[in-house]
Amino acid sequence: MAFVTIREAKEGDCGNILRLIRELAEYEKLSDQVKISEEALRADGFGETPFYHCLVAEILSAPGEPQGQGIGSKIIKKVAEVALDKGCSQLRLAVLDWNKRAMDLYKALGAQDLTEAEGWHCFRFEGEAMRELAGK
Amino acid sequence: MAFVTIREAKEGDCGNILRLIRELAEYEKLSDQVKISEEALRADGFGETPFYHCLVAEILSAPGEPQGQGIGSKIIKKVAEVALDKGCSQLRLAVLDWNKRAMDLYKALGAQDLTEAEGWHCFRFEGEAMRELAGK
Repeated sequence: MAFVTIREAKEGDCGNILRLIRELAEYEKLSDQVKISEEALRADGFGETPFYHCLVAEILSAPGEPQGQGIGSKIIKKVAEVALDKGCSQLRLAVLDWNKRAMDLYKALGAQDLTEAEGWHCFRFEGEAMRELAGK
Repeated sequence: MAFVTIREAKEGDCGNILRLIRELAEYEKLSDQVKISEEALRADGFGETPFYHCLVAEILSAPGEPQGQGIGSKIIKKVAEVALDKGCSQLRLAVLDWNKRAMDLYKALGAQDLTEAEGWHCFRFEGEAMRELAGK
């Protein structure tokens, strides 16, 4: 079985974090939306007032051994643990409606689909729309 | 016409902020989901590492004068301005699918409905599900 350790990200992980963001976006068919650079990831996550926190899963497996089983659950569980320690009362995720595998996992772990249950829609301003809104 | 000023919230606003959270939840038919206390709002927003930032709109109007026109737009515009100043590239909102008035406003201001356009669903872990997830 692969050996997984989960730890806090360090600034030096930003190159790999960006690679994983790009791989996720490719899977989500949303590669054109990845505009962040490694430099911005470093500045946003490791400055005086971090904009985000990040956990990294390190996997040690023998050559040819299948990877990936259970890592998603392990990392979500760790996020829940950190969130409770920090005094958070909820943990929220966004998932694409065709990503049945992810939806099934989150539901199996006890999450509720708020879009289905209560009708919540996610709205986004960005780029030109955001600058116009701000009058800039 | 009513006179509106928008400013950063102070700790002393938390009582009024909680009242407005409760009024919004009542409008959204989700009053049972408001579990936060004024004390928690004070601690979360005005400690060393704030969990949230908040703007307050102060309205000065003559007795009998209708209130409310344009305040939603003004406050969203101010949020966009603050967000751009802080280096944010997006502004996200959650809205209930039956709240056509809010949806129409956000779309008119340039937002995109990501649930409609790309199929994003909001998922939430909370309470017992979150504690179980964290193994606590």
